Amino acid sequence: MAVGVTDMPEMYAVKGIRLGTSNAGIKQTERDDVLLMEMVMGGTAAAVFTRNAFCAAPVLVAREHLNANARWLLVNSGNANAGTGDQGMLDARASCAQVAQVADGVAQQVLPFSTGVIGENLPMDKLLPAVSEAFAALAEDNWTQAAIAIMTTDTFAKGASCKFELHGETVTITGMSKGAGMIQPNMATMLGFIATDVKMEQSLLQQCLQQAVEKSFNRITVDSDTSTNDACVLLASGQTQTEITAGSIELQSFQQQLDKLCYQLAEAIVRDGEGATKLIRIKVEQALDSEEAVAVGKTIAHSPLVKTAFFASDPNWGRILAAVGRAPIDNIQMEAIKIYLDDVCIVEHGGRASSYTEQAGQAVMNQQEISVRVVLGRGEVSEDVLTCDFSYDYVRINAEYRT
Amino acid sequence: MAVGVTDMPEMYAVKGIRLGTSNAGIKQTERDDVLLMEMVMGGTAAAVFTRNAFCAAPVLVAREHLNANARWLLVNSGNANAGTGDQGMLDARASCAQVAQVADGVAQQVLPFSTGVIGENLPMDKLLPAVSEAFAALAEDNWTQAAIAIMTTDTFAKGASCKFELHGETVTITGMSKGAGMIQPNMATMLGFIATDVKMEQSLLQQCLQQAVEKSFNRITVDSDTSTNDACVLLASGQTQTEITAGSIELQSFQQQLDKLCYQLAEAIVRDGEGATKLIRIKVEQALDSEEAVAVGKTIAHSPLVKTAFFASDPNWGRILAAVGRAPIDNIQMEAIKIYLDDVCIVEHGGRASSYTEQAGQAVMNQQEISVRVVLGRGEVSEDVLTCDFSYDYVRINAEYRT
Repeated sequence: MAVGVTDMPEMYAVKGIRLGTSNAGIKQTERDDVLLMEMVMGGTAAAVFTRNAFCAAPVLVAREHLNANARWLLVNSGNANAGTGDQGMLDARASCAQVAQVADGVAQQVLPFSTGVIGENLPMDKLLPAVSEAFAALAEDNWTQAAIAIMTTDTFAKGASCKFELHGETVTITGMSKGAGMIQPNMATMLGFIATDVKMEQSLLQQCLQQAVEKSFNRITVDSDTSTNDACVLLASGQTQTEITAGSIELQSFQQQLDKLCYQLAEAIVRDGEGATKLIRIKVEQALDSEEAVAVGKTIAHSPLVKTAFFASDPNWGRILAAVGRAPIDNIQMEAIKIYLDDVCIVEHGGRASSYTEQAGQAVMNQQEISVRVVLGRGEVSEDVLTCDFSYDYVRINAEYRT
Repeated sequence: MAVGVTDMPEMYAVKGIRLGTSNAGIKQTERDDVLLMEMVMGGTAAAVFTRNAFCAAPVLVAREHLNANARWLLVNSGNANAGTGDQGMLDARASCAQVAQVADGVAQQVLPFSTGVIGENLPMDKLLPAVSEAFAALAEDNWTQAAIAIMTTDTFAKGASCKFELHGETVTITGMSKGAGMIQPNMATMLGFIATDVKMEQSLLQQCLQQAVEKSFNRITVDSDTSTNDACVLLASGQTQTEITAGSIELQSFQQQLDKLCYQLAEAIVRDGEGATKLIRIKVEQALDSEEAVAVGKTIAHSPLVKTAFFASDPNWGRILAAVGRAPIDNIQMEAIKIYLDDVCIVEHGGRASSYTEQAGQAVMNQQEISVRVVLGRGEVSEDVLTCDFSYDYVRINAEYRT
């Protein structure tokens, strides 16, 4: 049911980063469900996490371990280790200890991540042996297997990779993401793991990641539900000669490439939105500030009526207009607003545009990828929000999940 | 697909209020789609309207006419006269003029209401003759026909009626509502028309209505979409001997009965929520204030993941907990929260309650009507939010509507 191109791109290895996967049989018996990532000594790690107040045990542990020279990421799919109370914390810590033992490190250097069903304890008897197997499988060219191992209801593995020149050296960024439902990342994302071989100090790396995430993972929504386990990590293995420093031209180039890569990974999540048949790019223009632009975009993106109309390929512009009208914005003047489906103006002066024809609207709606452009006429700020439609299959997937 | 009892109760006539319906063939050819309500001279009228910034032409006109001794309500279903720009305003005014002409009143005494598809002009050639027909049909005992005439995607007509003693006189309140989708009333409701024979001055009547609506129509949500046409009107025909005045014991009794009646009408809308198979009563207790209690309740009520789990009768308490965790509340302590399905405690100390069994949770979920109780442990305030589940049929209804 995914929308558009879903092939895995070529995933360039990143110097100083190795990945290994194994099967713990948590929910999957056919494919691997455990991933271990290892970074060489001397690299730096940045991460952002869910703002859901009810966050999972591994999120709490990963946040605590982040500033202790993290070198390993341990990820399991099939079980979120969320809502598991004290036992959940013990299990998350025991997972880290197991990595430390097999890898000859310390538990505080391990960031644990879990994704899957909420409210069940991790099957530690299965997970711990699988950690050793994943360690034995570590290699630099395992990115695609890794992206597959972290999937849950995803229908395809999600990756992005790029190489570019920086200060005379070739630099690589490669990353993967997962997610299809419970998607409205809030200052974080579903799971995203990105690595690069550049050398950068931790606080600067953290800034780079936050900026990239803000305009990518934080601008997507499948179903308005923010997960308890969202996390996005950026590892910099420091294998290049030159360090990227604050204010440098290299930093700008790096940020640009990272932004683009994060956007690709975020877009892939929406393409794989549970039950999705269409990808909707909502552009809100001429807003007073970024906050109101995103608020209008998300009100449209969350409207079940708008989303079912897209599923039906119905140019029901009244539902879009009604959503804009209930967005949490003060003193909105509906008469000033213009709304476009691709290049077709559908609304102006508070009603259907005089130039609009049902035929033109229908032609846009028949496409798999559609842009909705809302021009507020209030200011200068634009923001994008990405979402998908709402289909029978969303209901089926979420009614059947767990059974 | 409606949940529970949907039979129309006995609808007591209200002295001084007559109703007439007719068929304009707007979307319906089989049943009436136009309603005219008339109040005798000397009564008072109160109303609340949608807060959607994009509100329909009839809402603008009704708001303007409210304080001019309103005596007539004209309602059509099948067309919302919303997003219709200047023509929509002209049509709404022309409808009022038509009523004034046939009823020998003035147009400013007529409040117009429309419900149905957004963005199409009212078929005035059909509507105007139907106004005359509805006028000719005016009678005191037409409440049930009236409730049928205002339906759109509703699967049953919604009414409530009561008689009680006040100061030695028998007083009647009778009302109807309509709505099934685009339901998250915001300081208003979908369409609700209520009448009573008491004597009360307009400003006091307005207070009574606002109080009743706040705890009934403003506490329901089907799909989080606030309509462009929401309105609720209360007519008081003044046919009783004694006037109800501010601060009186009679006012308290009247308010109590009105609150109950509005709650019945609001609940009927949720029972008829598009595609609904279950009625969910969410009670948020021990909140700091009413606002945060409603915010938590609505976050649960709007979660597509929670709603699809209810559809599947799946006691997926992790989704409820995740919704509470993303509610827009500061400093929420997940450890302090308890969540119950009916009397079954499902969550405490940030995880599954130790006493919880899947069997007990499943037994509650198998019911058609379920209560979710969230105890926040922060304060003393409780609020209720009513919603329904999210089924295949919601998608079908809203994907097919307009086609």
